[in-house]
Amino acid sequence: MLTAAARADLAALFGDRHSVAAAVLSEHAQSESLVAGGLPDAVVFPRATEEVAALARWSTAHRVPLIGWGAGTSLEGHALALAGGVVVDFREMATVLELRPEDRLVRVQPGITREALNRELRTTGLMFSVDPGANATLGGMAATRASGTTAVCYGTMRDNVRGLEVVLADGRVIRTGTGAPKSSAGYDLTALFVGSEGTLGLITELTLRLHGQPEAVMTAVAAFPSVGAAVDCVMAVMQMGLTPARIEFLDADTVAACNAYSHLSLPPAPQLLVEFHGHTAALDEDVSRFRTLATEHGAKGLDWAEKQEDRTRLWAARHAAYRAILASRPGAKAVVTDVCVPISRLAQAVEETRADIAASGIPGPILGHVGDGNFHAILMVDPARPDEIAVAKGLADRMAERSLRLGGTITGEHGVGFGKLGLMAAEHGAGWQVMGAVKRALDPLNLMNPGKLVPGQA
Amino acid sequence: MLTAAARADLAALFGDRHSVAAAVLSEHAQSESLVAGGLPDAVVFPRATEEVAALARWSTAHRVPLIGWGAGTSLEGHALALAGGVVVDFREMATVLELRPEDRLVRVQPGITREALNRELRTTGLMFSVDPGANATLGGMAATRASGTTAVCYGTMRDNVRGLEVVLADGRVIRTGTGAPKSSAGYDLTALFVGSEGTLGLITELTLRLHGQPEAVMTAVAAFPSVGAAVDCVMAVMQMGLTPARIEFLDADTVAACNAYSHLSLPPAPQLLVEFHGHTAALDEDVSRFRTLATEHGAKGLDWAEKQEDRTRLWAARHAAYRAILASRPGAKAVVTDVCVPISRLAQAVEETRADIAASGIPGPILGHVGDGNFHAILMVDPARPDEIAVAKGLADRMAERSLRLGGTITGEHGVGFGKLGLMAAEHGAGWQVMGAVKRALDPLNLMNPGKLVPGQA
Repeated sequence: MLTAAARADLAALFGDRHSVAAAVLSEHAQSESLVAGGLPDAVVFPRATEEVAALARWSTAHRVPLIGWGAGTSLEGHALALAGGVVVDFREMATVLELRPEDRLVRVQPGITREALNRELRTTGLMFSVDPGANATLGGMAATRASGTTAVCYGTMRDNVRGLEVVLADGRVIRTGTGAPKSSAGYDLTALFVGSEGTLGLITELTLRLHGQPEAVMTAVAAFPSVGAAVDCVMAVMQMGLTPARIEFLDADTVAACNAYSHLSLPPAPQLLVEFHGHTAALDEDVSRFRTLATEHGAKGLDWAEKQEDRTRLWAARHAAYRAILASRPGAKAVVTDVCVPISRLAQAVEETRADIAASGIPGPILGHVGDGNFHAILMVDPARPDEIAVAKGLADRMAERSLRLGGTITGEHGVGFGKLGLMAAEHGAGWQVMGAVKRALDPLNLMNPGKLVPGQA
Repeated sequence: MLTAAARADLAALFGDRHSVAAAVLSEHAQSESLVAGGLPDAVVFPRATEEVAALARWSTAHRVPLIGWGAGTSLEGHALALAGGVVVDFREMATVLELRPEDRLVRVQPGITREALNRELRTTGLMFSVDPGANATLGGMAATRASGTTAVCYGTMRDNVRGLEVVLADGRVIRTGTGAPKSSAGYDLTALFVGSEGTLGLITELTLRLHGQPEAVMTAVAAFPSVGAAVDCVMAVMQMGLTPARIEFLDADTVAACNAYSHLSLPPAPQLLVEFHGHTAALDEDVSRFRTLATEHGAKGLDWAEKQEDRTRLWAARHAAYRAILASRPGAKAVVTDVCVPISRLAQAVEETRADIAASGIPGPILGHVGDGNFHAILMVDPARPDEIAVAKGLADRMAERSLRLGGTITGEHGVGFGKLGLMAAEHGAGWQVMGAVKRALDPLNLMNPGKLVPGQA
């Protein structure tokens, strides 16, 4: 609850670009997953870094938390208010500030979405590669260290953010990184803020690496006799040093859901959806090697999409997989899981997860960016049935524990928010306390997205 | 100066693996550059993480600084004692702990050198890619975020360290990273410690990414009519999206020095030394594109080294360039510079630097990892002539300032140590104070390599 003085000061700063209307607060209390928070006290729509800096000073003066908001697509409650506070919605800071094609860099505001950015780049021969599926904002993607289908080739946000402008808790504005491709000048503050989920400051600008649009693209879809065969094939591909631009696994349930939702007619079997980027000579070699490996692992109907429209349909279906799966159980809500294991343990991780889900009675198709060892089960529950929710959460926790046991991580790309807070100590041990110390150093009043990522602050 | 109690406790911890002998202290007060420190109070040679942790507790109890030491090849005084303290020489922690070829990972102790590591990997089909020239230790390379000739293709230490074990100032031991290829589980502590130069903790173990040894390698050397033509060619190569494994620039003075020192007979002109890695079909295409670009930029005598022994000779000469340049002025010491600029500003940065050096009267050949925008001038001074040293330092400072003006960084790969401390505020502004806050949070007594990288601690 804001004090009258805080309300008045906020109104003076933002005028009609702040809101306490119930509908606006409620819109900013939604999440794509079952993780739920509370209502914020207000929502603001800044237009410039200096406004965000003034907001941080206001936050410090009135001891009110600030919570960044991009497109609202995060899955672990990152952008939800836990005990009031002001949501900072960046939709009015969504432009490309500078394109530097000769350095393959672009400077953008945090509220631009990846699809909007790539539309602006379409005629430049360049592209921004990170593709988490959802049409998230770049600010949100940086804050959660997002990745997705292309990370196996082009890297995650860790690799594709060259520099940031950040408003700190006390209103200071810093710039991290330079225009040079590398630097050894001190602590890697860019890497510290990428993945910090708004708990150390608010990102107000990003300088991003771009990649050349590939000269040639080959997409294949291959059906395998079993999950194990498909996953073993992925392990062989990665261990051989092939570098697919994407290599996605879809189990038979996911394929069935995609067939129904996206009007495809893929064989209802475990599938790999693979893409190679490059110049033609190199591609032929990559494709031939992949074909050999896939055949060795029992793939049938290895089908190369030659035409752009076929490729687009396949990847559109992959991107719609989450919605397709949800549509396969009308009224269901998802507990979305996200683990990432060493490639050598991928088959074991997927098989044990499948067995655990099968025993639970909860429908839970599995899909993932398996070239990175990253996969998801979409556990579908009736939101009115606490017993189903409890079973799904137990499955999710066991997936995370299994991942740690196999040398992996509790989250490959979705982040911690507060949905995975309870698992952080198990992954990091004393390192989690170090994160807490860094948090206190930069945000001693615990006003930047409190209750997320780090241990509870005293 | 250690107290008697501190001496006794240190002796109890390390026995004959600690030394206060003048020769040992003096050996650990040397540097490859003109940057000079003082004598440490003692040197210890730990054999296990637990010994380093005990040392950190000892350091806290007795308020004695700890300074990590690898191979002593750093160039900005990183490993030098500024006001006493104990140098932690990792030479007895230099083994490969675990090789995981199926995950392309290796776990090593910090004292192993990159050449020793690659010798151990030789029969595995895998390699560790980062190659700063000097046979540095992996711990030191991580601490300085080293890179070198292959970073343009395979990345720097930032990209090739998957995880660390670190002893903190208070003796706690943390592990960062996991065996999975990516993670979104909280702050990127691995990236925070890579490049922290021993100021946040001592690295006692590293998990490193390995790459497949290339199936085929093509090396070319090309002479250009001018520095500008050579550098413009590099810019064209990078902007076209060609991915050389290495692309090195050597100016005519460097080439002359290499000819004399390594018994080569390269034309005394600006040269590019280029290498492509890949499979044969892709290489042919890369080579053909490079040939076209080089010819367009006036390259003559574009010479492909077909035989392994020719390639080895060329790269050995490149690696010996620093010694070759020093040998060209007997008795000289080097002020080694290290800037890195956006690719689009590379030609301007090199040309302005050349003009500035020419006007100074100090010999200063230029060479560098230009695919990254990174280059060095080796400024040779008579160590007995303070006037020459002052002129060289002025040149070095102007190079750094020029780099910042062009959107680059004060150090591409050598790091800050205390040699570049005076330039950090100019690069980072308030961000440098943020580094100081992180330092205080993790090392409140300022015992981990004090006087380096961060602002002076109160």
